[in-house]
Amino acid sequence: MNRHSSPITRHSSFDLKAFLAEYRQRVDAALERFFPASDGLEKTVVEAARYSLFAGGKRLRPILCLTAAEVVGGSGNEALTAACALEMVHTYSLIHDDLPAMDDDDLRRGRPTNHKVYGEAVAILAGDLLLTEAFGVLADDALEPNAAVPPERRLRALAILARASGGRGMIAGQVIDLESETREVDLATVEYMHIHKTGALISASLEMGAVLGGGTDGQIQDLVRYGRHLGLAFQITDDLLDIEGDPQVMGKPAGSDQAKNKKTYPALLGLARSREMAQNHVERAVEALGAFGGKADPLRAIARYLLERKA
Amino acid sequence: MNRHSSPITRHSSFDLKAFLAEYRQRVDAALERFFPASDGLEKTVVEAARYSLFAGGKRLRPILCLTAAEVVGGSGNEALTAACALEMVHTYSLIHDDLPAMDDDDLRRGRPTNHKVYGEAVAILAGDLLLTEAFGVLADDALEPNAAVPPERRLRALAILARASGGRGMIAGQVIDLESETREVDLATVEYMHIHKTGALISASLEMGAVLGGGTDGQIQDLVRYGRHLGLAFQITDDLLDIEGDPQVMGKPAGSDQAKNKKTYPALLGLARSREMAQNHVERAVEALGAFGGKADPLRAIARYLLERKA
Repeated sequence: MNRHSSPITRHSSFDLKAFLAEYRQRVDAALERFFPASDGLEKTVVEAARYSLFAGGKRLRPILCLTAAEVVGGSGNEALTAACALEMVHTYSLIHDDLPAMDDDDLRRGRPTNHKVYGEAVAILAGDLLLTEAFGVLADDALEPNAAVPPERRLRALAILARASGGRGMIAGQVIDLESETREVDLATVEYMHIHKTGALISASLEMGAVLGGGTDGQIQDLVRYGRHLGLAFQITDDLLDIEGDPQVMGKPAGSDQAKNKKTYPALLGLARSREMAQNHVERAVEALGAFGGKADPLRAIARYLLERKA
Repeated sequence: MNRHSSPITRHSSFDLKAFLAEYRQRVDAALERFFPASDGLEKTVVEAARYSLFAGGKRLRPILCLTAAEVVGGSGNEALTAACALEMVHTYSLIHDDLPAMDDDDLRRGRPTNHKVYGEAVAILAGDLLLTEAFGVLADDALEPNAAVPPERRLRALAILARASGGRGMIAGQVIDLESETREVDLATVEYMHIHKTGALISASLEMGAVLGGGTDGQIQDLVRYGRHLGLAFQITDDLLDIEGDPQVMGKPAGSDQAKNKKTYPALLGLARSREMAQNHVERAVEALGAFGGKADPLRAIARYLLERKA
């Protein structure tokens, strides 16, 4: 991305690229600390989990979580275990989604999927491990900086994470996704699916950060509203990329959603209306940040960036 | 079981059968409350999870958890969400263990395994859901009686659950189990496997109960020691039942461990030495309860009962 010509810099002088690189590094260092390699008898499954955890993810959820904590006046550090927990949950969901019994995908981010490298049994366990340790890192008093965060806030963050990942969150979306491959669904169902499958965890990233950073109820609500619109914009642009994206940049073949009869926004609404809808959600996401000052610039820039993303 | 002739009643006048029936009912009612049926779009996966959650389990882990809380002076109620969380984690581990990619079992407790009824994809998700909600019920302030329990204790219980289920607990045991099917292992490795695969969660049941009930460090340590020996005795008697048990009572064919080349105690030590070892662990489990009075009678009776179990 050339920062001098980017439309993001037209909106503000905020350097999103540098921000994302810095925060990504911060998240990667914390993940390395909270999910280290193992040379015990369990090393196979830890290695498999780390293969996917350190596969070049954008760390969107952790970055949203840390930023939300900062936006409400925290240092971000109080949300560091939560940020890593979110990435672990996200990674577990990708590993299980890719399994032969689920989406049966061979490639993810340009590399063979977890079960292609480690076999199905270890891939299932690696997902289970990441999900378990996600809650573990948030609950463990021995991990810096957990002990300095009020236990009530950490419990609340744990509850938000469980709700977003559970039967009324990510897993609900996954069930609808599976079922919708074999039957006709309408736009409302597609929206329900995305709000749960992708949106719930993105929204939870902001909510957990805001809670851990000590935000007021109003601040938490604003950030959740931002997260909801961001999640939908993210999903729509993801669908668009699957059709229009460059396979080299994406790390997976174009048109793979269509091939699997996935119900996407472009399939239901066409390209033009899908783009319009993404734009609309980005605008509403930015509007939700009205009460925050310059500290929310990273969140504004992230939302606007979705409309130009290439991967 | 005829209580007048049972060896358990020879040790004490404590009526284990009535105790287990009463506590099982208490656990079942709580599970029904914390993991209700759903008629939302996610109902398939909730139904699948409930199929296994309410499949006639003995509720050993929840009962140990509630009893541990009582033994240290609590009412047991403060450990009710923890007790249910333990059963959810246990059930998730059974569903994933039975999958074709893992043990590939068709029957569990006399009924078709989860994936046989709901298919592999939904079975994987049902396991994921149970694991997620396990942490969710413990973290959720809205569930009775969570709000009345000090948040520090609930966080500590959550951390114990994650540790026991994670890469240094249950999942480590599962990895060794998978790997040991295709290579020779010694007794130390078998012991390591069982301590992790089964023992960790049983031990955690007692530790979580003791923590939530407000036990002292010494009390918690005693109950963990009881749990470690109980877990090993449980696994050895489980192995023995696989060889000697009545398939009708067990709900699965006898000799299924042998058929899968599972490394069991009887396979490594022979029947006589395995029985002796189980006996020894039961004695040491009971010894660990020395500092507790009559309140620990249920735990004593449970340990002794392992030596006579039929399923």
